[in-house]
Amino acid sequence: MTERLTALADWMKDNDVDVTFITSPDNVFYLSGFLSDPHERLLAVVVFQDAEPFMICPAMDRENAKNAGWELEMIGYSDTDDSMELSIHAMKKRVHALKKMAIEKEQLNVERYEKLAGLLGNVAFVSAEEKLRRMRMVKTETELQLIRKACELADFAIETGVSEIKEGKTELEVLASIEYELKKKGVTEMSFSTMVLTGKNAAAPHGTPGLTKIQKGDLVLFDLGVVVDGYCSDITRTVAYGEIKKQQEDIYHTVLKAQLKALETARTGVSCSEVDIAARKVIEEAGYGNYFPHRLGHGLGVSVHEYPSLTGSNPLLMEAGMVFTAEPGIYVPGVAGVRIEDDVVITEDGIEILTKYPKDLVFVS
Amino acid sequence: MTERLTALADWMKDNDVDVTFITSPDNVFYLSGFLSDPHERLLAVVVFQDAEPFMICPAMDRENAKNAGWELEMIGYSDTDDSMELSIHAMKKRVHALKKMAIEKEQLNVERYEKLAGLLGNVAFVSAEEKLRRMRMVKTETELQLIRKACELADFAIETGVSEIKEGKTELEVLASIEYELKKKGVTEMSFSTMVLTGKNAAAPHGTPGLTKIQKGDLVLFDLGVVVDGYCSDITRTVAYGEIKKQQEDIYHTVLKAQLKALETARTGVSCSEVDIAARKVIEEAGYGNYFPHRLGHGLGVSVHEYPSLTGSNPLLMEAGMVFTAEPGIYVPGVAGVRIEDDVVITEDGIEILTKYPKDLVFVS
Repeated sequence: MTERLTALADWMKDNDVDVTFITSPDNVFYLSGFLSDPHERLLAVVVFQDAEPFMICPAMDRENAKNAGWELEMIGYSDTDDSMELSIHAMKKRVHALKKMAIEKEQLNVERYEKLAGLLGNVAFVSAEEKLRRMRMVKTETELQLIRKACELADFAIETGVSEIKEGKTELEVLASIEYELKKKGVTEMSFSTMVLTGKNAAAPHGTPGLTKIQKGDLVLFDLGVVVDGYCSDITRTVAYGEIKKQQEDIYHTVLKAQLKALETARTGVSCSEVDIAARKVIEEAGYGNYFPHRLGHGLGVSVHEYPSLTGSNPLLMEAGMVFTAEPGIYVPGVAGVRIEDDVVITEDGIEILTKYPKDLVFVS
Repeated sequence: MTERLTALADWMKDNDVDVTFITSPDNVFYLSGFLSDPHERLLAVVVFQDAEPFMICPAMDRENAKNAGWELEMIGYSDTDDSMELSIHAMKKRVHALKKMAIEKEQLNVERYEKLAGLLGNVAFVSAEEKLRRMRMVKTETELQLIRKACELADFAIETGVSEIKEGKTELEVLASIEYELKKKGVTEMSFSTMVLTGKNAAAPHGTPGLTKIQKGDLVLFDLGVVVDGYCSDITRTVAYGEIKKQQEDIYHTVLKAQLKALETARTGVSCSEVDIAARKVIEEAGYGNYFPHRLGHGLGVSVHEYPSLTGSNPLLMEAGMVFTAEPGIYVPGVAGVRIEDDVVITEDGIEILTKYPKDLVFVS
C-alpha cells in the first residue's frame, strides 16, 4: 500500500466508511499512478479499511495500469462483462456487512449510483471528495518537480506567443504557433483551451480566441497551461503591441501591484482570504474594484482547478507544499483587459514562484 | 416552442413524464441552440408536457443564450444563488403534483440527483437519454450542411498531414502542422484529440501520438475530426511512406475492399448489423478477422460518438438522414495498422459520402 492509500484507509477508519469507490480519472491517477480517461467505460480504484484495495479497468488497459505502477489486485473486464457487478462482487468478498460507502458525488453518475444502491441494499453513501481534495492540496517534492517542468514549458509558450505578435495576425494564428512549438517539444496536452485575446476581446475575463486581428495599440492577453506527466501549469501574461493609452498602462501597473502584493502576503499560517483581500485592496484603492470580478486564484496540480481556492471568504491557512495561482485582473469594457498570473508554491520560509516570464510591461514593436 | 421541444413534450405525454431535466451540454445545445460547457456550474433546459420550457444558466451567460436563439423563459443565477433550488422552485410553479421526472442518468451526478430527490420527495426518475439519442439520430438539412463543412475541413486536414510527411519528422510535428493550418482557417475545436501514428504505433487501434519519427517503409495513419458550429466530422486515412511490404499492401487493399462493401450495403431499410457484417466478412475471408477488434462505425453529429452504432448485433434499420462513420481496420502487431474511415449520410435513394479525400493507396515519396 502506498502512503496515499494508507491515508485514505485511515480516514475511512475514523469515519466508519467500509468502502471507498473512486472513479474520477484525476483521483484514480492520484491513488494509482495510472492516468487514463476511460470515457464511458468503468475505471475505478476501490479502497477498504483493512483489506487490499483493487483496481477495475478495461482488460485492454491492464498492462498500462501495471506499467504505471499499480501492484495490487487488478480486475480486467471485457465489453460483454457487467463491470459494476464485478466491482460489487469483489467488494462483498472483502466486506461482509457493507454499511457505509464513500463515492465522488460530484462525479459519479446516477446510472452507476442506482446500480450500487440496488445491488448493495441498505447502504449509506457519503462523499469522498473533500478528503481527497485535502490530500491532493499539499504536494510532495516529486509532484513539485513535474509542476516546475510544466511551468518552464508555460514560460516558453508565452515567449513564443509574444514573439509571434505582428500587425494583422489573428488570435488563432498566434495560438497555433504556440501550440505548434510546444508539440515540437513533445507536449501532448494543454491544461485547458489556450487563450490568445487581443484588444476588446481581452477585456472579457473568459473570451474565445477567433479571427480578430492584432492591431497597434492593442493589449494582447495570453492564458495557457501545459500538462507534464499528469501535472498542470497555468500562466497569464498581458503585453502591449505598439503604443498604448495612459489608462491602459495605469491598469497594467495596478494589476501588477496587486499581484506582487499577493505574492508578498502569501506565507505559511496566512489565510487564503487574507491573500485575496490584500490584492483586491490594491485594485479597489485604484478605483477598479468593480472590474475585478473573480477570485484571486486557485490551487493546481493534477487538476488545473483544485484546492485551495483563494477567495475573500476562505479561512484555510496556507501551509508548505500548497501550490496555487495568483491572478488578479481588471477588465474595463472598451478600454482594457489585463490579467497577470503566476504559479506559486508555499515553502517553509516563504514562497517559490514557479512561472518566471517577466512581468514588467512588455512593449512589442 | 421548436419542433424538438414539441417532440420531447409529446414523448413525455405518452410516458406520463411530468418534467424533463436536461443538463448535458450536447443535449442542451440540441434543444436550445446554446452551445456552452458550464463546467461545474448548472446549465439546464427543463421541459414540461404543456407548460413553457425554461432554461437556467449562469447570469453572465444569459445574453449568449439569447443570441444563440433561446426565446423562452430564462433564469439567470449568480454564484451565491442555489441553482438547483431555483430550478426546483420553477418546476413546482408549473407542475403541482410532480410524480415522474426524466433525467440523463449517464450524465447527471449524484449530488444534483440527491438534491432533486430530497426536495421533490416521492418522485420516480426515468432516463431521458434513449429518447434524445433517437431524436438526434436523424439529421435535418441544416444539420447536414454543418457536417458537410466539418467534413470539408477534415479532408483539408488530411491533405495537410500527408503533405507534411518527411523522413525523421515526429508524429507530433506532423500533428502540429495540421492543427496550425486548421486554426489559420478559423477552426477552434477538434472532434477529439488528433491522431498521427506511424509504423508500429499505427498497429494499435488507439495509440497516442508522440516523438516517434516517420521512416521510409512506414504506414502513417491519420484519424481526426473538426467541429463546425457544434457539429463533428471524423475521418481516417492511412498512407504509405516510401516502399512498403507486400503484406502491408494486401492489408490496405483488404480494408479498402471492406470499407467499399460497407458503403455499397448501407441503404434505407438495411439494418446496422447487416452493414457491419458485410464489411467484416471481407476481412474474415482474407484471414484477418481476428485483427479487426472494433465495430464498423458509429453515428456522429453534435457528439462524435452517437446513435446509430454499427455493430454486428444492432437490428436498427437505416433511414434517410442518419449520419455515421464506416471505418473498418486491420491491426497486425509489428506488421501493419490500417484504417479507412468516411462519414456518410443515408439519403432517400442511396448514400452521400461526406468525406472525399481519395482512398486509393497513396505513396508519399
